[in-house]
This record gives sequence, structure tokens and C-alpha cells, in this order.
Amino acid sequence: MRVVVALGGNALLKRGEPMTADVQRANVKTAAQSLAPVANKHQLVISHGNGPQVGLLALQQAAYPQVAPYPLDVLGAQTEGMIGYMIEQELGNLLPFEVPFATLLTMIEVDPNDPAFQNPTKFVGPVYDKAEADKLAAEKNWVVKADGNKWRRVVPSPLPKRIFEIRPVKWLLEHNTVVICAGGGGIPTMYLKDGTRTLVGVEAVIDKDLASELLARELDADLFVMATDVSGVYLDFGKPEQRLISRITPAELKEQKFAAGSMGPKVDAAIKFVQATGKRAAIGSLEDIEKIVAGEAGTNIVME
Amino acid sequence: MRVVVALGGNALLKRGEPMTADVQRANVKTAAQSLAPVANKHQLVISHGNGPQVGLLALQQAAYPQVAPYPLDVLGAQTEGMIGYMIEQELGNLLPFEVPFATLLTMIEVDPNDPAFQNPTKFVGPVYDKAEADKLAAEKNWVVKADGNKWRRVVPSPLPKRIFEIRPVKWLLEHNTVVICAGGGGIPTMYLKDGTRTLVGVEAVIDKDLASELLARELDADLFVMATDVSGVYLDFGKPEQRLISRITPAELKEQKFAAGSMGPKVDAAIKFVQATGKRAAIGSLEDIEKIVAGEAGTNIVME
Repeated sequence: MRVVVALGGNALLKRGEPMTADVQRANVKTAAQSLAPVANKHQLVISHGNGPQVGLLALQQAAYPQVAPYPLDVLGAQTEGMIGYMIEQELGNLLPFEVPFATLLTMIEVDPNDPAFQNPTKFVGPVYDKAEADKLAAEKNWVVKADGNKWRRVVPSPLPKRIFEIRPVKWLLEHNTVVICAGGGGIPTMYLKDGTRTLVGVEAVIDKDLASELLARELDADLFVMATDVSGVYLDFGKPEQRLISRITPAELKEQKFAAGSMGPKVDAAIKFVQATGKRAAIGSLEDIEKIVAGEAGTNIVME
Repeated sequence: MRVVVALGGNALLKRGEPMTADVQRANVKTAAQSLAPVANKHQLVISHGNGPQVGLLALQQAAYPQVAPYPLDVLGAQTEGMIGYMIEQELGNLLPFEVPFATLLTMIEVDPNDPAFQNPTKFVGPVYDKAEADKLAAEKNWVVKADGNKWRRVVPSPLPKRIFEIRPVKWLLEHNTVVICAGGGGIPTMYLKDGTRTLVGVEAVIDKDLASELLARELDADLFVMATDVSGVYLDFGKPEQRLISRITPAELKEQKFAAGSMGPKVDAAIKFVQATGKRAAIGSLEDIEKIVAGEAGTNIVME
């Protein structure tokens, strides 16, 4: 079976934890322990979030004004290196030496006409008070929005259209390589509209789950798992009567309402994958991943 | 023909240039223009330096003391992302859309008993005055040495023993993928000496030319080029009577004396490659790369 697992950002760095290399590595080690049995039985492709890591790099470069801050696409590429390295090393330590690994930088195309560019929604980087945020917005041509009682930069979150490195990923899977790619939703890029076919980086963030869905679909994956820190999708989540959905069709799932930002994008990505491919998608806890792959845990989204 | 090109650090960021993303991108674009004709005719693998980029990340994280600085292996992984992304994108813009690209994170094994660990020689990160350097050395267990009239951290530069991702690189080359890998000499790693076969990152820097030589050798490359900012290896360099060596055998080259730190490691790497494989190595200017590949420029090191 070919399995794509999208690791939630909180699998690598939990909210409130210090953002040190040691903390990240410990979390990656835990994630690797869950993933190793899957890699032992199946073809495995791993994608991952990068929100806290990009945030840290943004803070670090803001603290060193002698060099102009690097744009988000470059920071995204840096986090693909940082996180991919830790995953490859820690998972590699749990598998037979013979298992090949590859961590690929991944550029993903977005459409310059995507309506998301008219309405930036994704918070990135440090928080500021209003006056400072307004000043930065004017200086750097940022859009800033209130995040609680502080202000932050927001960037567009356009849809992923194409994964440039999809053929290399396929070729590596033919040799049963464990592939780590599309980190942070991929590096957002687009073609300039000047007819020159010039690809450039974009100051945007592609939703990791939607990017991973595209990856799973284009790889003809048999199973697309979004691993997070809850056991799956719940009806009446947070209420006394909450109950886990263990099996549901896309049509049924569409009728439920979920908050955007947490479960919403995962549900959308699962529906999209299952409707497009007829294969299974699943949402659940990273620690249950072996059972989820076996169809025995999490929320399984299936055609019937 | 299968060609491995090692790009010198100064091909990406010249000494004294501001370390901005724009400057780097402009330099990468120039490098890509030189490399494109080679990629059009041959299988091409590109490695690159990362000295100034690791230096910048070290400065940025030192400026943000709220989070403990990340170790050198992780910073190296980040620069493989940063630089690999720019090379992949800019070179991709100059080649037919159909040409596949892959940028691979590359972990390289070093020997914990390498004598380099007893004698750190490679400067990394910011410069300090002596008092500050001594304080940091005590705090962080660094070795510091004088660099001109300032002080800097030094780390070991052990020899590269094994490239973990060599099989994926080979598989991708079978599909004529342009592969970017082993950036910054690869991420230095070693097995703990506790018998558990646990691979960990190392605070060290592997010489980029030696790492690229190992890469070229293991890939059975037909040609190994080290591209820098001089036309090749000169006899009596810097004197009025200086003259370019256009063709030389390893045995003859060994008899010449070159300063360590600049041409020395390139000469060593070239000799090693040619003696091990019988194939050609070359040292020369990035802008001459097409001619160097054709054997018409640079210093060519050949068995006879």
C-alpha cells in the first residue's frame, strides 16, 4: 500500500513549548516511533507543517536588522531543510539501514489569479502592537490584522495547483524510498504573468493539508492520513455528548459544520481526496497511526 | 556524460556583498546561466558551498537569545533548503519545462575518531573580541581561535566517509533529473559509539570540495568540476610570471605547493578523484563552465 501521512505542526512543536532544536528533535523522535511500523509495511511519504519554525526564523531575522529579512518562500525552503533533516534522521534510526530515504525540496505552483490574493488570511511571524504593525505595513507593504489583542502580518493562502517535483517523488517510491516532501504546504511559487514562463517565489502560505492532498492524489496513494493531536473528527466536539466519527462518506461529512483553522481544512482535504480517487482518507492521532493505517482507529472517510 | 559541478561559496555570495536574499538570487541567476548549457547536454549534479549563509543564520539566532541557538548540523540543513531552492528555481527557469529537478537533503557520515576532532580548524559564525570569545567558549564549550585581530569559533572539519542518500541520487539520474545535493559539504553526522547504530548530527563542517569528490566518485561521474572565481590553478600565482596550468597529472600536481584554505582542498579533491577513477577533474571559473566541460578551459587534471 502507498500511504501519504501529513504530520500536523503540533506533532513537531506543541503550542507553548520552547522552540528549541532539542524540543523539536524530541517530538520528531516520538513521531518517528509512531511512523516506523508504517514504513516497515508500506510505501511511505511524509509531509509536515512548519508554522512555528517559520515563525522562529522570522523572529530571528527581525532581531538582526543588519540584513534585510528573507521572503517567506525562502524561509519555507529553510524549514523544509530543518524539519526534513530531523525526520529523516530520527526515522532512519528506527528502520533497517537498507531502507532508502530522501527529503526533497518541494515547490508548488499557485495561480496568481487565486482569490486568496485579494483576501490574505494566514498569520505569520511575530506579534506587534497596533502602531508598530501599521508602521511595518506601510514600510514593507504588508497586510496586518488583529490576532487577539495584538497585531500580526497576514499573507494569502492560495490553493496548490501543481507539485513540480512529483516525478522524482514517484521514481523514488518505485525503489521503496521513504520520501519526505511538501513540508509546510510546499514552497509557494507562481509564473509571472508576462508570458516569459518565469517561476518566482510568492509571499504566501499554502495550506499543508490541501498540499498533502494534492501530493497523495498525484502519487495515486492508496491512503491519505492527516495525523494530528486528536483522535479524529467528533460530532458535537467539546460538548458532553461529543462522539468520534469512525467511518463516514464525503457526502455525509459535507453536511457537518467544522471550525475553519483547525479541523475544517482537514475535512475539506479528506473529502477532496476521497471524491477524486475513491480511496480512503483518515484523520486521527499520530500515536494511533499504525491502527489508523489498518483502518482500526481515527476517522475514516470512504466512498461507501 | 555525467558531470558533478561543485559551486564555490563565492559563486553565490561574494566576499563583502550584502547577504540579502536579492543579492544571493542575482548571483544564483548568473550561475544558472552558466550551468544551463551543461544541463542541456549532460547529466548534471550540482553541489554548493554555504559558508556565508550559515554565518548569517548564526548571526540571526545570536541576535534572538530568547531561543537557544540551533546546532550547526541543523543550520546546514536549513541552508541546503535555502540555496537548493534558489538554484532549482533559477536553473529551472532556463531549461525546458520537461527537465526534472530534485534538491535532496544530504547527510554525510564522518568518523568520530577522525583526528580533525582533536584539532578544530574551520571558522564559523560571528567574530568577537577576545573577552567575549573566551566567555562564549566557557559557556558553550566552544573552541575559539584568533581570526585576524578578532576571535571566532572554530569547529572540526572531518573527512566525509559516506553519503547516505547516494542511491536516491543515482535513481534520479537514471531519469536524467538535474540533482542538487551535498550543499555545504553535506550535513555532518556520525554514529554514536555506544553500539546502538544511532546516527546523530555533529557540530562540524565537512569540506565542500572533498564531499563533492566523494559524491562524484560514488556516482561514477565522468567529470568532476570545481567551479570558483579564478580561471584555474596557476603556477607562481600572484607573481608577474604566473601561468595557468591547463592540463596536468595527479603526480605532477602533487609536487606543486598551494595555500590551504583556497586552492589546496580543490587540488587535493581533484587528485583524489582522478587517481581513484581515472576520469577527469577540472578546476576553473564558473563563467567558463561550458568550455571547461568541453575540456577547453580551466585546469584539467587527468591520468595522462
